[in-house]
Amino acid sequence: MTSSEAKAKAKREFEDVFPTLAEEFLASVRSRSFPNESVEWIKKCIYHNVPGGKMNRGLSVIDTLEILKDGKVSSEELFKARILGWCVEWLQAFLLIADDIMDASTTRRGNPCWYKMEGVDMIAINDCLILESALYFFLKKYFRQDPYYVDLLELFHEITLETEFGQSLDLITAPEDDVDLNRFSMEKYKFIVKYKTAFYSFYLPVALAMHMAGIKEPSTYKQALDILLPLGEYFQIQDDYLDCFGLPEVIGKIGTDIEDNKCSWCINQALLVATPEQRKLLDENYGKRNPENVSIIKEIYKQLDIEGKYKKYEEESFIYLSELISQLDETFLKKEVFNSFMKKIYKRTK
Amino acid sequence: MTSSEAKAKAKREFEDVFPTLAEEFLASVRSRSFPNESVEWIKKCIYHNVPGGKMNRGLSVIDTLEILKDGKVSSEELFKARILGWCVEWLQAFLLIADDIMDASTTRRGNPCWYKMEGVDMIAINDCLILESALYFFLKKYFRQDPYYVDLLELFHEITLETEFGQSLDLITAPEDDVDLNRFSMEKYKFIVKYKTAFYSFYLPVALAMHMAGIKEPSTYKQALDILLPLGEYFQIQDDYLDCFGLPEVIGKIGTDIEDNKCSWCINQALLVATPEQRKLLDENYGKRNPENVSIIKEIYKQLDIEGKYKKYEEESFIYLSELISQLDETFLKKEVFNSFMKKIYKRTK
Repeated sequence: MTSSEAKAKAKREFEDVFPTLAEEFLASVRSRSFPNESVEWIKKCIYHNVPGGKMNRGLSVIDTLEILKDGKVSSEELFKARILGWCVEWLQAFLLIADDIMDASTTRRGNPCWYKMEGVDMIAINDCLILESALYFFLKKYFRQDPYYVDLLELFHEITLETEFGQSLDLITAPEDDVDLNRFSMEKYKFIVKYKTAFYSFYLPVALAMHMAGIKEPSTYKQALDILLPLGEYFQIQDDYLDCFGLPEVIGKIGTDIEDNKCSWCINQALLVATPEQRKLLDENYGKRNPENVSIIKEIYKQLDIEGKYKKYEEESFIYLSELISQLDETFLKKEVFNSFMKKIYKRTK
Repeated sequence: MTSSEAKAKAKREFEDVFPTLAEEFLASVRSRSFPNESVEWIKKCIYHNVPGGKMNRGLSVIDTLEILKDGKVSSEELFKARILGWCVEWLQAFLLIADDIMDASTTRRGNPCWYKMEGVDMIAINDCLILESALYFFLKKYFRQDPYYVDLLELFHEITLETEFGQSLDLITAPEDDVDLNRFSMEKYKFIVKYKTAFYSFYLPVALAMHMAGIKEPSTYKQALDILLPLGEYFQIQDDYLDCFGLPEVIGKIGTDIEDNKCSWCINQALLVATPEQRKLLDENYGKRNPENVSIIKEIYKQLDIEGKYKKYEEESFIYLSELISQLDETFLKKEVFNSFMKKIYKRTK
């Protein structure tokens, strides 16, 4: 089996667990004798929002556990790692439904956002809360007997809170309808990325696998955090770069960060080096829907060689992160956990 | 000290704990080096939404613990009971912010709803999530060392989920902008009340105090549930009655359940006994903002003697609930826990 076949197989086996979870949760709604219309509504919400993503976060739990246990993972452990992986995906579904309402987004993964679906609207708020609660239902069902059960609960609570703090700063820094580039800065940008994305996308899956692997020392979790947060920052900067410079046919969407007044790496990089004239044009044209405004922003990005600056940043980050990983004390952890992340994301084009 | 002086003192002492909690939570935001604008935003959200209610739910935790422990509550236990009481109040604040957005409400406790405040709007969604997360921050801080810590976490998770299920059914039964009385029924009404209100308002505070009192047997929690859910139903029916028939100067607000297309006890009672002609008028006039439509509904309520039917229901409920309480096995619980609730709510006018 080639590596890409193995990857596809791992993904399929992960996906196969999803209907079991969805059905168990729906069975618990039915067991309360809720009318069928309630069960059908919640079912529709689950299937619209939870599956269908790239599932990188969920799959990372399994990959990390395999590395930590040298491939010696029993089929029961594998199953439980997949459950935890899905818990991350349910968490993400909850967060994205809420984000899409707050950002007034219209599409997600090529479909209408959940709140944009016929008859849903603000009911989506309660729906996303149900998806969040479901995750604790699964943890209780599958991990209650495990010595690290409380650690899992606390981990999900804490990561959820970090993410909400990050989202809070993002929302007051870049409100959907009020453009003011004075509120942006590279420092704030990195802050938002760390809290809003890196904790739940990078640290959470690894920390979950670490708990399953029996790692207890808080200092070991701190080691992982110290690598995974910068790795998450690097990933998000790539994302921001690709939104503006990636090929739509490769990244699978047309980026709209400029139109959406997003506090993106590109605009923050531009603000660092713009002349007063260029800055004036950035102020006048950022966060507007009109293609002419967008073109002006892109023209300034070109003048400032944002693309070149990104390539330089990418090289430097690679060196910095590789160095960070190489210094890792492998008593309880393994460099391969982090190198495998690097391999997946370095110089990605989508 | 008279009983009402004692009550006022208990309330004051409960309120005095709030600033400590708010400051501890804000200190944790500051400790992450978040910019001051973030801290100020979250502070404003907390102070707008968490205090200022009747605090019956929070105070019930303390009252129940006092009864269960025959008044022998140490000052440390009292402090911890107040923390749990505030956790219920933070949970409620979280739920109400979300409810108000979904119901398109404008005011709450005499102030504008949080999402209606200048500059807030949909950011309120993330704000309510932060309040929910804060509750687990407090539980960890104050209860981590207690043998019943996991029970507290699971209890909050489960009650939150029950409430969200109830809210889900309510929202699809009575959407804010689509009146269809065919979707209503007394059975569905009772279902919604049980899940959306009774679990978190009645069972949760008592169950929290029971955990503090060292009660472990699941059957004892079941006994409490079996009394508190009907008690919660009775309370909500009173609420619905008062919304329509209570004196605005006494209940402190002008009821708008008819205008808001609420699945209230009054309309469900009317639907049970209306003639085809009356039903037609109910269909044509319910859920409309115009005072003339509201008058027609109220006139039919008068024709159908909804007020008399309520008085009859109230008497019957009192007898039924008193009987239920009198049959309670007091090995691990006390009738007084439930009788004290009854005393607080029977024949209330606000």
